[in-house]
Amino acid sequence: MPPSDSIVASLNSIVGADAVLTRAEDLIPYSFDGTAALKVRPSAVVFPRTTAQVADCVRLAAASGTPIVTRGSGTGLSGGSVPSHDCLVLCLTQMDAILDVDPRNLTLRAQPGAITMRIDEAAATHGLFYPPDPGSQRISTIGGNVAENSGGLRGLKYGVTRDYVMGLEVVLADGRIARLGSACVKDVAGYSLKDLFVGSEGTLGIITEVLLKLVPRPAARRTMLALYDSIEDAADTVSAIVAARIIPCTLEFLDRMTAGCVEDYAHVGLPTDCEAVLLMETDGHPAAVVDEAARMEVIARAHRARDVRTARDEAEGLQLAAARRNAFAALARRRPTTILEDVTVPRSELATMVRFIADTAAAFNLQIGTFGHMGDGNLHPTFLTDERNADEMGRVHQALDAIVHRTLELGGTITGEHGVGLAKKPWLRQQMGDASFDLMRQVKGALDPMGLLNPGKIFD
Amino acid sequence: MPPSDSIVASLNSIVGADAVLTRAEDLIPYSFDGTAALKVRPSAVVFPRTTAQVADCVRLAAASGTPIVTRGSGTGLSGGSVPSHDCLVLCLTQMDAILDVDPRNLTLRAQPGAITMRIDEAAATHGLFYPPDPGSQRISTIGGNVAENSGGLRGLKYGVTRDYVMGLEVVLADGRIARLGSACVKDVAGYSLKDLFVGSEGTLGIITEVLLKLVPRPAARRTMLALYDSIEDAADTVSAIVAARIIPCTLEFLDRMTAGCVEDYAHVGLPTDCEAVLLMETDGHPAAVVDEAARMEVIARAHRARDVRTARDEAEGLQLAAARRNAFAALARRRPTTILEDVTVPRSELATMVRFIADTAAAFNLQIGTFGHMGDGNLHPTFLTDERNADEMGRVHQALDAIVHRTLELGGTITGEHGVGLAKKPWLRQQMGDASFDLMRQVKGALDPMGLLNPGKIFD
Repeated sequence: MPPSDSIVASLNSIVGADAVLTRAEDLIPYSFDGTAALKVRPSAVVFPRTTAQVADCVRLAAASGTPIVTRGSGTGLSGGSVPSHDCLVLCLTQMDAILDVDPRNLTLRAQPGAITMRIDEAAATHGLFYPPDPGSQRISTIGGNVAENSGGLRGLKYGVTRDYVMGLEVVLADGRIARLGSACVKDVAGYSLKDLFVGSEGTLGIITEVLLKLVPRPAARRTMLALYDSIEDAADTVSAIVAARIIPCTLEFLDRMTAGCVEDYAHVGLPTDCEAVLLMETDGHPAAVVDEAARMEVIARAHRARDVRTARDEAEGLQLAAARRNAFAALARRRPTTILEDVTVPRSELATMVRFIADTAAAFNLQIGTFGHMGDGNLHPTFLTDERNADEMGRVHQALDAIVHRTLELGGTITGEHGVGLAKKPWLRQQMGDASFDLMRQVKGALDPMGLLNPGKIFD
Repeated sequence: MPPSDSIVASLNSIVGADAVLTRAEDLIPYSFDGTAALKVRPSAVVFPRTTAQVADCVRLAAASGTPIVTRGSGTGLSGGSVPSHDCLVLCLTQMDAILDVDPRNLTLRAQPGAITMRIDEAAATHGLFYPPDPGSQRISTIGGNVAENSGGLRGLKYGVTRDYVMGLEVVLADGRIARLGSACVKDVAGYSLKDLFVGSEGTLGIITEVLLKLVPRPAARRTMLALYDSIEDAADTVSAIVAARIIPCTLEFLDRMTAGCVEDYAHVGLPTDCEAVLLMETDGHPAAVVDEAARMEVIARAHRARDVRTARDEAEGLQLAAARRNAFAALARRRPTTILEDVTVPRSELATMVRFIADTAAAFNLQIGTFGHMGDGNLHPTFLTDERNADEMGRVHQALDAIVHRTLELGGTITGEHGVGLAKKPWLRQQMGDASFDLMRQVKGALDPMGLLNPGKIFD
């Protein structure tokens, strides 16, 4: 349903007519995000440029009972920014300024539409580092990262987006503007509301500014590839590295299908005939890096790595890491529809889980390429399928259900870094338990009593 | 008011008569915590041994409208565990088991009454490390640490308690038991309710189990003392170390009065004639430690350190750190009443803040010893006073108000690690702003609609 003329007039007066889209063909690009097979046409899209404009839009929506879905670049993989019916989409890509880098306090302030990689580039000009690096970092926005609590390839050593959010400015459901957190590295004044908003997927408020923590940029880095004839050997290598008290920045896994697709796509010299590839990176003090790399190589070989290759230099290391980042795109070329999963288990259950995924693919006669952040227990089994084939999609859903249930049996989570959105709603209550699930709804009810912020995401 | 016979009978049947205290003289030790001048007699104290007993006590209290105040060892410094009138105190010191250490997943599970230092000792038997080390770690309980989001001496490099809480079991206001978080290092399934409970000071639920993250124990450590004739030089050294991209595990500051009191108390060879002492520790890979220590010494000398001494060995390093831990006890011997403050500012404002505290002491003719976690911007100006002297206490409150207001002007927080409790309530709304403050109350109203959990703490 198109918005009423009076609402369009109000939106025009808030953000300017050139920042309001209402024609059907203009709305199409804002009808979906990075999640396969989820599309809903919004009633309008607006592009605010200031916090005050966001607040005005929210007040207008609240007054007319219009749902609001906030989005940035739309790279989400759980449907978190897919519109709801007749909603107003607030697209924050125009609020993309990096406002301030403070090397004395190791902080960076940015608007929500700033591209993730630009954040780290701004930090780098001061010798500083913003570690969270979701796969989509070249196009994803920091606001979306905070709303989804995005992870990335460096989670094992450096943690996830939450670990770098010191403060937020948010517009609440009633249009009020709240500042959460502070520039102090220690702050226990009241509930940690910023932590409630991080990962709340746009359901509690709209992030209009972020204050991020930076860390010193590591002085050295070394990248290695270890090649295996058995997936279990790769998983056991990861466990053994952690058991040896080594916390590398990256321990990424690619199975045979993923490595093959990546090599076809990126031509970086990945082997296509081994069952598992581990991409291992250590960073920090140069002496520590040399030492850890040597110990990791010994551990990999002790776990039957067929070969361990060390990148000649930083450039080759970056090339290998970039190739791994392309795993999703590389897999997506094989079949019309790509469904990227995000199950995560305690590290000790990795080998069990990887094997279960492979067995499930065989049992349901499906193509599943698996890669992921093995050091975090975070796996991305990726279904290569075709949404036009009803029979195959039926098997995909059965296989997915089996994988998620096995994950929960192993003490895992239905989503390690992509969020619940629409895609993971069916299993959330089972994971959380009734008491926690109800608690979450109580919080939502208290903060958004009209239920207008990203309705239907996380829970109904 | 003593509890009714029927409530006492019910409590006896839940936890056993030997775990219920109701006689006036037995209640005295549970009438206060570590905060000066705050005492309220509870109506009864119970010592549950299981989560089920906690839940039964909460249901009983809810049915009778009895407020509940949860406590551990009572070391809190903001009045967070001081009873409210006619409340039931749940003292969880009997639930003190360390349930499990899992070296494969780097986790430790414990009951809330486990002593903080025992947690790290249990980790150490596996070569692992639980870094948060509040000053009271020898007697404080982990449940209290989580409820207050306690800091410590290692916050600069290792963060605070929140950074190590992966999961919680909590009893909610209606007696239901909820599990929050998981053993996965990445988990974005639903709101991060555990983060809402960390630091909520017992006002949202009762923590009955904690799942903690551990890290590898650092292989090497070096401890140094730098001595200064000017407080500003010490503060500038801290800024310069961070600006040089060095993140030591500890950068502690003691002013002349504190250093003198500590030396009187502990006899570790601290100088008593310099204006500022910095205790600096670096840990990690042996080569990195040697390198960082050398660079820190150069920076300290470049900022006019009169002398820089390096501990001969681990034992001397531990002795120096232990002496610093005794700062509060050492200062407390000087005058009858010790009021320990906890203001925190962005690191760049440290020198300004330290100078302001000294000037305020002079202006109000008061004794204030200042020490604290300078690397975190977290200062503990400590008033040495006498609560029986009404005139002096009036000046203490005026000086405290001036210090807190200056802190807020500098973008700081009214509490870095001690919590709001009763002591910091007057300034919380000013720090948070109306919208955030109201948001916090909305959350409290949703989770504890009867207002029975630690009433009057954080806000009225």
